[in-house]
Amino acid sequence: MLTRTPERSLTEQLAERFAERIRARLLPAGARLPSVRECARQQGVSPYTVVAAYDKLLAQGLVEARRQRGFFVRDIAQNMPPGQVGKSLAAMSSGAEQASPLGTIGVRMTGSQINATALMRGMFYQASAKPQPGSGVLPVAWLGEARFLPAAVRKITAGPALQGGSLSYGEPMGDAGLRRALARRMADIDIAAAPEQIMTTVGATQALDIVSRALLKAGDPVMVEEPGWSVEFARLDALGMRVLPVPRGPAGPDLDVMARYCELHAPRLFVSVSVLHNPTGYSLSPAVAHQVLQLAERHGFHIVEDDTYGHIAPEHATRLAALDGLRRTIYVNGFAKILAPNWRVGYLAAPPELVERLLDTKLLSTLTTPSLLEKALALCIEQGQLRRHAERMRQRLAQARARSVQLALAAGCRFAAEPAGMFGWVDTGVDTDLLAQRMLDEGYLIAPGALFRATRRPCTLMRINFATTQEPAFWQAWRRVVQELQ
Amino acid sequence: MLTRTPERSLTEQLAERFAERIRARLLPAGARLPSVRECARQQGVSPYTVVAAYDKLLAQGLVEARRQRGFFVRDIAQNMPPGQVGKSLAAMSSGAEQASPLGTIGVRMTGSQINATALMRGMFYQASAKPQPGSGVLPVAWLGEARFLPAAVRKITAGPALQGGSLSYGEPMGDAGLRRALARRMADIDIAAAPEQIMTTVGATQALDIVSRALLKAGDPVMVEEPGWSVEFARLDALGMRVLPVPRGPAGPDLDVMARYCELHAPRLFVSVSVLHNPTGYSLSPAVAHQVLQLAERHGFHIVEDDTYGHIAPEHATRLAALDGLRRTIYVNGFAKILAPNWRVGYLAAPPELVERLLDTKLLSTLTTPSLLEKALALCIEQGQLRRHAERMRQRLAQARARSVQLALAAGCRFAAEPAGMFGWVDTGVDTDLLAQRMLDEGYLIAPGALFRATRRPCTLMRINFATTQEPAFWQAWRRVVQELQ
Repeated sequence: MLTRTPERSLTEQLAERFAERIRARLLPAGARLPSVRECARQQGVSPYTVVAAYDKLLAQGLVEARRQRGFFVRDIAQNMPPGQVGKSLAAMSSGAEQASPLGTIGVRMTGSQINATALMRGMFYQASAKPQPGSGVLPVAWLGEARFLPAAVRKITAGPALQGGSLSYGEPMGDAGLRRALARRMADIDIAAAPEQIMTTVGATQALDIVSRALLKAGDPVMVEEPGWSVEFARLDALGMRVLPVPRGPAGPDLDVMARYCELHAPRLFVSVSVLHNPTGYSLSPAVAHQVLQLAERHGFHIVEDDTYGHIAPEHATRLAALDGLRRTIYVNGFAKILAPNWRVGYLAAPPELVERLLDTKLLSTLTTPSLLEKALALCIEQGQLRRHAERMRQRLAQARARSVQLALAAGCRFAAEPAGMFGWVDTGVDTDLLAQRMLDEGYLIAPGALFRATRRPCTLMRINFATTQEPAFWQAWRRVVQELQ
Repeated sequence: MLTRTPERSLTEQLAERFAERIRARLLPAGARLPSVRECARQQGVSPYTVVAAYDKLLAQGLVEARRQRGFFVRDIAQNMPPGQVGKSLAAMSSGAEQASPLGTIGVRMTGSQINATALMRGMFYQASAKPQPGSGVLPVAWLGEARFLPAAVRKITAGPALQGGSLSYGEPMGDAGLRRALARRMADIDIAAAPEQIMTTVGATQALDIVSRALLKAGDPVMVEEPGWSVEFARLDALGMRVLPVPRGPAGPDLDVMARYCELHAPRLFVSVSVLHNPTGYSLSPAVAHQVLQLAERHGFHIVEDDTYGHIAPEHATRLAALDGLRRTIYVNGFAKILAPNWRVGYLAAPPELVERLLDTKLLSTLTTPSLLEKALALCIEQGQLRRHAERMRQRLAQARARSVQLALAAGCRFAAEPAGMFGWVDTGVDTDLLAQRMLDEGYLIAPGALFRATRRPCTLMRINFATTQEPAFWQAWRRVVQELQ
């Protein structure tokens, strides 16, 4: 709520609040601000204050007035290419977004008015000091339990290895010690990968980017899971790919839809989070895994298995790369969800015949990767610290999940998927695009369901992070806003 | 030279030598091995030894025999996309490469048989323990003079900053401290850039990659300098761009050719190394700089100014970004040539209206960049250590250059460009593709002129690194092989 202070008037505060969201692209270009009357009611201020605040935004060039229609966010990033022109959550929920039924063949995102990079910006937007339910990572306080990290870095930097390792470009495939450690780690989850098949990357993000760039060319059809991780959609969109959304169920992707895509479009790639899928928490069943691989074999497509949440997965989870022996599957992982997101250490393990091509793409995009952090991470893996840390995180998350689920149910939430892993996939009963805008006023960034759909259609679902939805205060605010929207 | 040892027969040594080069792609797919007679003569072994060595390569699946034609390198990286299928230096020099005259409009590389990533592989190929004349970086021993590096890293990792900085994704634009330090550093060379216009990247390589991805789409025409850095050609090729080579002279790019391209093709971008151009060492004149900017203004293209060699440039060098005030120019730099290549810290400074778009592309490709190394580098800049180190490197390089030039002239070299900076652009009088293959037998990796041409036509030029051509032994070997080839 806005409160008048001697330093800043209500007008200034309100204008600044909108300005911040526009700059963070939570209110992207083309978004319509609430009507003066509506905004005054929501914020508990006079219409005069709202008009004054909107005038301030107008003077700053952040919004424009359209006669009889209201105030609209201006395109602050000029010359944006078509695929990246922003459209606000509010604008999308207004019905202007062209709806297309689930399973529609061949959603081509470029040229549409969708800005899927908005969620990424949201990842970096500090809505308030409160825990953020929309966050995609474990809280800093949790990750800080890994007290072995600074010691590992100091050990690496104390020796001559720092100088030696830093002064040349380093190994193209990445630090050999880390690749050996990763090979052993993968063997623990039944994935047979030689160090020569493993390549380090700048986080799992670059691994996914490299695979798309090396195996696809603009216009190629790619199957993705829906709901799914919108940054993957945005990346494929920016590369000019044709995105084919496959509905993701509890046991895996919809095989009938995949088979139809294969016959109609001959897709080159399928991108899947098989274990603790984001946002549903689903994990692939062995039977569906087997059929996905048969389909890949029959139709000659490759699979990228993004195992980002594998660190917190239950033991004996089914992975495509394990069944397949890395024949058609490229395994991708990183450490951002468990250890040090900013270190940006990720990796992929690929079929031998693809390694050279993937390496070329890595070299063209970043040349090598910093070995200092790779060496420090190898140390943490070899000394068993990572494994023990992951075990603690799993236990802590299990407790948080139990508490969060209880609070959610008590607040009237319905879980659309059995709670598992880090994320809950919750049906709120109201349009979550609208809910997201309103919850920002309460200091909470939430992740509306539209962000996980290739078409970005608004819906009543939202993703919550169990680790950051532990406080009754959030659920109280949530319930109040939902009731206002009903 | 091969020498029989108790451990390894001449056959084994010869086979291993070829196998190594094939794996490093210095002999790419399709390359023809020398005839048995020729190889025996070159290596000073019996034809029987050569036949036995070739048989070994055949058994290893590295080469194939074609009746009446000899032995050819097999495509070890199967399923290579068309643009990346390798073609050997030898095959190119055989005349199979389609020659096209300099200035030909619109060289489209994709689909051709050119593998420009070969040079990158060469960067990592250890031909022998000798200093490598083809190297693109200063020797490790030189960079090792920067003894302040480990201290800076330790200082950063000792404090709570390591934990705090590592446990979240970090700032999307990169470490704020480094960006402020870079803004001040750029002001020293008359480039006015606010920290908000500066974005850190994974080396200058990612900066160049991000600019191409953010500003261009597949098929767009891009002007590049020729001769020029072939990794840039390879990147644009892999992204599906249309490469328009502009002849680079002592004062700058050929303005007439640029003007013609502008009228015929409306290129979107011009990529330029204005100061100490690679491979010629040329630096842009103020008059040409002014005209390039006028052309950009008139025809609406952007310019990427790659200032990689700026650290070792004379003072008061002319930079487009300084004249232009970052209006149409994106300035790119890194530290790989002067400090710690493996840290992969680079940056770009862009016109304000492009920043958001470039940031989106960074987030999609690697999310953030490791702040630990950025903070350590900021420290080195702020304490003046980088500046003093660069000054020492400049002095040391000037001495090395004088000595190398003297040795080169004595060996019969002719400089095609006035020696300056790190590289010499030398006319050898013989086909440098052939020379490169033969010099490998002597343990030297050289950089033949074809690698710096968009069309990869063989020529008599080669690039030498002044820092690594200090030994008379290299020039003696060079002279002997050149005389054999004449």
